[in-house]
Formats: sequence, C-alpha cells, structure tokens
Amino acid sequence: MARNKHPEETVRLILDVAFRLFMEKGYEHTSIQDIIKHLGGLSKGAIYHHFKSKEDILFAVADRMTSESNQLLANVRNRKDLNGREKLKAIFKVSLNRPVQEELFAVAPNLRGNPKLLLSLLQETIEDAAPNYILPIIRQGIADGSIETDYPEELAELIILVANIWTNPMIFNNSADESYRKFMVFGQMLKGLGVDIVDGEMTDRVRELSSIYQKNKLHSAH
Amino acid sequence: MARNKHPEETVRLILDVAFRLFMEKGYEHTSIQDIIKHLGGLSKGAIYHHFKSKEDILFAVADRMTSESNQLLANVRNRKDLNGREKLKAIFKVSLNRPVQEELFAVAPNLRGNPKLLLSLLQETIEDAAPNYILPIIRQGIADGSIETDYPEELAELIILVANIWTNPMIFNNSADESYRKFMVFGQMLKGLGVDIVDGEMTDRVRELSSIYQKNKLHSAH
Repeated sequence: MARNKHPEETVRLILDVAFRLFMEKGYEHTSIQDIIKHLGGLSKGAIYHHFKSKEDILFAVADRMTSESNQLLANVRNRKDLNGREKLKAIFKVSLNRPVQEELFAVAPNLRGNPKLLLSLLQETIEDAAPNYILPIIRQGIADGSIETDYPEELAELIILVANIWTNPMIFNNSADESYRKFMVFGQMLKGLGVDIVDGEMTDRVRELSSIYQKNKLHSAH
Repeated sequence: MARNKHPEETVRLILDVAFRLFMEKGYEHTSIQDIIKHLGGLSKGAIYHHFKSKEDILFAVADRMTSESNQLLANVRNRKDLNGREKLKAIFKVSLNRPVQEELFAVAPNLRGNPKLLLSLLQETIEDAAPNYILPIIRQGIADGSIETDYPEELAELIILVANIWTNPMIFNNSADESYRKFMVFGQMLKGLGVDIVDGEMTDRVRELSSIYQKNKLHSAH
C-alpha cells in the first residue's frame, strides 16, 4: 500500500485495520506493530503522527462506531411524526437492525476480556446515549402523554443500561435462548414502567444476533 | 505488635488492615509494604506465608465481606414464616440495614477507580447472589403464588444487578437525591414486574447511606 497523501484517509485506514484487529485478537493482544503490518507501507512514524498511543487508537475506533450509530439514533429522535413512546420503540428497532450489528456480532470478542472496551461502552451509554438520545424522547413522551414518569433522567439511564449492557451477549456471553429470555424480561420491565414497546420482531432479532455471536465464539475456540 | 501464634488470627489481622487501607487509599495505591507497616511487628515473610500476592489479599477481603453478608441473606432465604415476595422484601431490608453498611459507605472509594473491586462485586452478584439467594426466593414465590414470572433466572439476575450496581452510589457517585430517585425507579420497575416491595423506609435508608458516602467523598477531597 502506498503512503496516503490525504491525512483523513490515512486515519480512516488506520481505524479500519485497528478495529478489525482489536475485534479478532482482542485489544490487549494487538500491538501497534500488528496494526502497521496490516497497513502495508505505512511507517510507525505515520501512525504516531496521528495517534499518541494504542489506547488513543482504541478510543478513536470506539468514537467512530459510536458516531455512526448516534447518527441513526438522532434521526429517530428528530422525527416529527412519532410520539415519545413510538420513538423509543423506533430507536430500539433501528439499533437492533443497524448495518454494523451483524458484522460486529460475527467478530466481536467477549467484552469481559476487554475491560477498556467495556468501560468505554459503559461510559458512552451513561454519558452520551442516556442524556442525548433516550432522555429527550422520554421528555417528549411526558409532554405528549405517551410516557408517564416522575424520574425521566433515571428512567432513561436504567433503560439504556439494561439494553446496552445486560441484554448484550458480548458481555454476558449468553446463548441465543438466554438472550431471548433476557429481552423478554426487559420488555416486561419496560411495560411495567409504562413503556410497552418490545414486540416479537425485536425479540426474534435479539435471538438471531446472539446466535451469530455464539457461532463466532465457537469458531474462534477452534 | 507481637507475632501472633494463631494463624487464623494473623489472617484476620492482615485482612482487617488490608481492608482499611484498600478502602482509604485505594487498592492500586496500597502496597504490601503499607500493609506490613500497619501490622506492627509482622514480617513480609509472615504475610507471604498466608497470601501469594496483594491480589490474593484483595480476594480474601472481598470473600470475607461477602460471606458475612451472605450469612444474613441465607437467614432470610431459609425462613419458614414468609412467602417469596415477603422474603424478597426482607432481603433488601436486611442488606440495607446490615451493620457493615455505614462503615463501608463512610470509607469506601469510588469503585470506578478500583476496577478489580468493581469486577469482583459484579462477578459475585451474577455468580453467587443471583443464583443462590434471589433465585430460590423467586422460585418459592412462583410456587406459593406471590411472584409471577416465566423467566426466574433472568428476573433474579436483573433485580440484583440493578440493586447492587445501578443504585450503588460507590459506583455511579450519585448524590443522596439521585440515589433516592434511582431507588424509586427500581421500586417501580419491581412493581411492574409483579414484585411490589420497595417502601418509604427503604428509600429513606438509601438516601441516608448515599449521604454518608458523599460526606466521606467531600472529606477525602480535602
């Protein structure tokens, strides 16, 4: 690969390669040297020109995934044709069906073995997803009468934490059936909190994603 | 301090001192040397006779706290005079009111700065508390008709994770008011799942513990 003259393309290439390696080998087992090897002609100096450290690359990779995904969430949040409850449902559907999901579940490592990735997902969930996407939707739902709660901030945080963390087979290493049952309980929890939005299409999709992930784990064990 | 002739008392002393130092300085900032210094005349060799490493001491400290607390939970689980729903309520009351709580909240560090402690709490919650204490109570509740669910394992795990992790100010560094509101949402979530057990006494106690913790944080910031 020839040295790229456009810095933003160099950065994109570094992140593409790093993402793939972090997912395949795990963050801890990927060295800057591994990343360079897969970048063809790029020098160590060229990487360090853009990133101070491997950790810097990790956060850039996570940031990029997050901002792609956040664009989809923002599109739902900004729609004018749905009430709050409908938007909350739409946001879970969009998340489960976004293009990167199958690829991610097909190559993702167990996040418990990658504490830095897990911590970054946790932080992003609490500090970005909850206040910037879920909370405005819940506030709209309170205003339009489709959601009833006295504690919108806490409800937003709990919902997205349970969805992103507890029902996530990459963290808990659940089987397809366990993931399905967790999502059923998540749906009942939401219903009990006055937000009845989980349907069969969503629980089927969760089972499917979890089974893709388990096949990948089975592969990498051999 | 004279060298103790009874090994179980030596171990107890090491754990007492280590617990105090881990809580005050943080696990990462406590060295074996610090522990020795606070043990008076005990030699490095005497510590290594009982523990392979500092991490070994940490797990022994956590195990001891857990087994003290588990004894209280087992007492509730084994009672014959309560149905499942009543036992679940009693178990939360006992946990909030157990003697070690105020001391713990008065000296505890933020667990996000102590990933090893956080991970061990998470693991203990999922692998011990959920299956051995909450699940048998939920199964009893299903049998006696006081709890209704098709997914007892998942319900047990979700309930205890939200209680131990999400409503825990040591992890999320919540103010007393935020902790109170989180516990209110936790109560509504339980009610929605058919387990209406959170009462004013419990939410008041959560506010009180969280405020003890915040005072301690204020102190250690100076």
